[in-house]
Amino acid sequence: MYSRNRIYVTPAEQKRIHNFHILLAGAGLGSVIAECALRLGFNHITIIDGDVVEKSNLNRQNYTVDDIGKPKAEALKNRLLSINPHAKINAHHCYLDYDNIPHFVSNVNVAINAIDFDSDIPFVFDYMCESLNIPALHPYNLGWGACVFVVTDKSKNLSHISHNPQDFELKFASYVVEHLTAQGNDMQHFNQCMQAYKNEEQKLPPPQLAVASWIAAGLCADILFRLAIGKQVKLFPDFYFKTL
Amino acid sequence: MYSRNRIYVTPAEQKRIHNFHILLAGAGLGSVIAECALRLGFNHITIIDGDVVEKSNLNRQNYTVDDIGKPKAEALKNRLLSINPHAKINAHHCYLDYDNIPHFVSNVNVAINAIDFDSDIPFVFDYMCESLNIPALHPYNLGWGACVFVVTDKSKNLSHISHNPQDFELKFASYVVEHLTAQGNDMQHFNQCMQAYKNEEQKLPPPQLAVASWIAAGLCADILFRLAIGKQVKLFPDFYFKTL
Repeated sequence: MYSRNRIYVTPAEQKRIHNFHILLAGAGLGSVIAECALRLGFNHITIIDGDVVEKSNLNRQNYTVDDIGKPKAEALKNRLLSINPHAKINAHHCYLDYDNIPHFVSNVNVAINAIDFDSDIPFVFDYMCESLNIPALHPYNLGWGACVFVVTDKSKNLSHISHNPQDFELKFASYVVEHLTAQGNDMQHFNQCMQAYKNEEQKLPPPQLAVASWIAAGLCADILFRLAIGKQVKLFPDFYFKTL
Repeated sequence: MYSRNRIYVTPAEQKRIHNFHILLAGAGLGSVIAECALRLGFNHITIIDGDVVEKSNLNRQNYTVDDIGKPKAEALKNRLLSINPHAKINAHHCYLDYDNIPHFVSNVNVAINAIDFDSDIPFVFDYMCESLNIPALHPYNLGWGACVFVVTDKSKNLSHISHNPQDFELKFASYVVEHLTAQGNDMQHFNQCMQAYKNEEQKLPPPQLAVASWIAAGLCADILFRLAIGKQVKLFPDFYFKTL
């Protein structure tokens, strides 16, 4: 299966990522990341998500019409096993909370924090990862652009942006835009979209596109690889952002 | 299905891409691009590929273990219909040649030239697209980085790199590296990989990773969108290249 990885990935590196245990906290954007990482060679993935698949997920997440109504964790496990039946995939249809985070975070090598910001759980999750010296990737779907930042015991953590999880995604997006603008990027279109989102009468989840999901998946698979083989990655408050 | 595309994609744009007919010439890297484009809202895709799925494709292409031995065009059609059963997907299990290119290229709005460079067919394909004023996207998997360039009647064409399709992928990679190096990018690792590939005793197809496939898919879906709604894109000899 990995014969075409040759040259880019040495046999020792391939073996290393095979056993490198990924904790996927959130199988929304995480569902696309997991498939890319699996195809690269990560064979040990634990998936946690309490949601079921909805039709409105299909514009950007790794699910099919037959998956609608099923737990995301189970549906994603089935998809990953259809690609590699020998992979070690654990699926848990539950939400992360104060009680179960310590259990799930122990014994993994790296975590992907793709949890919705509707409580302080993403903060608690990172805190527990940090205390166990487990790097946590934060991928974000910003429509036409993908953003990823990495939190470790040597980096800043989420409270660098805000101590309050309320409206955290908007605060985070503002942080990213501010930094990219300072670096000379033209963020006018993204600013307009963010303003339109803030102006919506109904409080809806933010819009997200397949474009950013796919780019984020490629970036995260690369970051996971670098972390597994001990190569350096940018740490938060620095971050990765890619768009066309 | 597209409710979460709101703001980034207007209703008129969503309708426009729904009917914008994509010709997918080659369902290798093309298989990942097609899914991303479909989830964004492209609903009319014609797939041409004469290959069957092999196990060695699974490290980076959009197939499963059950697909092994089946025609790629059919397997991809099934995957796309599982995501959107109402999409208009045509699958043709055949190779493109001088005789059938004019037929397939007529009546499409945009083409993705993801054909293997083992003959002059990619050149003929572009020539026919150009004569019918159809933009052709060229996506390339460069391992950890994805490259896409767009050929139209107003751009340069493939012969700008070489008139000879032999070893075209290597010539193309050299072209890309030269330009990225001139722009100040550190291409040392990629150069080492390219050298290692040239030094291989057996003449094998080039190594390719899931990372670049996923990034290329995001980039191509965005380019397809821009072409469909009449927004400007970079034209060859300029190109898009993204890596971590």
